[in-house]
Amino acid sequence: MKRSEQKIFSDIYEKERKNINTRLENVFKKRKPRSLYGPSSYIISSSGKRLRPLLVLLTAKSVGGKFDVAYNAAVAVELLHNFTLVHDDIMDNADKRRGRLTLHKKYDESTAILVGDSLLSIAYEYLLKDCKDNSKNIFTSFTNGLVEVCEGQALDTEFEHRRNVSLDEYLLMIKMKTASMIKMCCEIGSSLGGGNNENIKAITLYGLNLGIAFQIQDDLLDITADEEKFGKRIGGDLLEGKKTYLFIKALEKAEGEDKKALLKVIDNKGIRINQINKYKSLYQKLNVIDDAKESINYYTKRALKPLYVIKNENDRNILIWLADIMLKRNK
Amino acid sequence: MKRSEQKIFSDIYEKERKNINTRLENVFKKRKPRSLYGPSSYIISSSGKRLRPLLVLLTAKSVGGKFDVAYNAAVAVELLHNFTLVHDDIMDNADKRRGRLTLHKKYDESTAILVGDSLLSIAYEYLLKDCKDNSKNIFTSFTNGLVEVCEGQALDTEFEHRRNVSLDEYLLMIKMKTASMIKMCCEIGSSLGGGNNENIKAITLYGLNLGIAFQIQDDLLDITADEEKFGKRIGGDLLEGKKTYLFIKALEKAEGEDKKALLKVIDNKGIRINQINKYKSLYQKLNVIDDAKESINYYTKRALKPLYVIKNENDRNILIWLADIMLKRNK
Repeated sequence: MKRSEQKIFSDIYEKERKNINTRLENVFKKRKPRSLYGPSSYIISSSGKRLRPLLVLLTAKSVGGKFDVAYNAAVAVELLHNFTLVHDDIMDNADKRRGRLTLHKKYDESTAILVGDSLLSIAYEYLLKDCKDNSKNIFTSFTNGLVEVCEGQALDTEFEHRRNVSLDEYLLMIKMKTASMIKMCCEIGSSLGGGNNENIKAITLYGLNLGIAFQIQDDLLDITADEEKFGKRIGGDLLEGKKTYLFIKALEKAEGEDKKALLKVIDNKGIRINQINKYKSLYQKLNVIDDAKESINYYTKRALKPLYVIKNENDRNILIWLADIMLKRNK
Repeated sequence: MKRSEQKIFSDIYEKERKNINTRLENVFKKRKPRSLYGPSSYIISSSGKRLRPLLVLLTAKSVGGKFDVAYNAAVAVELLHNFTLVHDDIMDNADKRRGRLTLHKKYDESTAILVGDSLLSIAYEYLLKDCKDNSKNIFTSFTNGLVEVCEGQALDTEFEHRRNVSLDEYLLMIKMKTASMIKMCCEIGSSLGGGNNENIKAITLYGLNLGIAFQIQDDLLDITADEEKFGKRIGGDLLEGKKTYLFIKALEKAEGEDKKALLKVIDNKGIRINQINKYKSLYQKLNVIDDAKESINYYTKRALKPLYVIKNENDRNILIWLADIMLKRNK
């Protein structure tokens, strides 16, 4: 891919990110009652990466569609994403999100439950705005994504309380909790963009594998990221005793004292801050950081492979570029 | 309406109620993960009246449609209804529902939040099963119902914290929180049943007004019901200081000491158990029980009036009978 092409894509991305932000702000501006939509505005105004709406727009473009056909759907997927964040934050009892107070901390739990529900309802409302004769497919795709996110969240919680989680189980969980939404964005974008069945199928598969790579990357960043750019504490997953790709892989490979040290994380439901470096070293010793990188590479390749069906090189390059920036992110 | 006709309707109702119960049980029987769908089964197996699914089925029938075209949609509206109950119970910190522990008391809040979300997602999944070429209308109706329920719940919470709520504001709130769902059931049922636009419009209007009457009836039952049949304590709304139809009407009419007594309910956020009879007497003195009955009559008439467009008398009678049993219930 040429540098000039990359520059064009990145300019489009930045322009449309701003565009999406404006559209998201407008969703709740005039709606009533304010006791509901005020807090909704709060949560939606925090500066997210807006990856999911951008996926909708750019997959629409990659099959020759104009952005115009998918702006409301793009808003819808971001609202859906924020619905999951608001409810997850209550379940995880999280204090902060994107550097600001979580909704249930700023207001209260009842407000956060209802705002989450409402975000989801408005998501469907916006999705409807972009639905024409293809509405059943679009709705099926969106709803399947939602069902799987809930199931993935339940699995994630189940794993928290289990001692043994295999890598296969972990992969199934992130497929549902994270990748199903990325996949859905790609499926909806390429459908609204007017892609043929072959293209939609390829781009959906791209989304699924990209989503898996994206989550493993997320697990990896928790250990390898630059704390300042990352915006959260390095080793947060270890502190909470989360069963990430790195942790499960490490547990698989470790023996003797190393294994004991990892099992302690499970038994104590996390580690102390002053132990982070010890466990980071253990991960390095067991080579699981490289394993994660390898796995990200594997799923990225699986994401890109089906794209050969997109005949226009420029269209295909959008998706290749998108995978690249998603997986090279540092936050 | 003949007695024999009433008997036929009531037999159909009972048969279809059981049918819906079986269908609801089957929704979660084999789904995984069980950590999610086990609790979903628990909540859906409690013996509700299943009014909303029956509304879907009977409005479909009232325009000449077969039940078969709307069973999945009927399941969907009951799932949606239970989603609101599960989340409302968390917000209200309620211990019991239909004589059993609420979901967040039986399990925990995180489970209840996620189960609620999941019920909604499966509701959309089931709705899709009955959607054919009319899918956009059906989805719009369902989604509008959902949006309004969330807005109504927010208004209800707002009113709890306000000293003054007018009767008009109250009516707007119950229109959104309760009636929008009844209306939606009627709109979806009559659409799936193949009604023409004129019939769908009339039956939707029927649902809206029936829903308003239904909620005022609910407020009334809190004071006038037979405790044993009702299944909950008489005067529960007074104990919680809820701004019901009766309370708002009483506050409008009261003067002097009576007004002071009512304002105390607001200031103290409810009354004590030994005060229930005192306030019941006050309601009687101010004649608000009759006011409520009059209002129920008014909205019932408004519900039935548009039905003249349904030419077949037997079809029309189903809906008249349904309004009658909904508003003559004692629980």
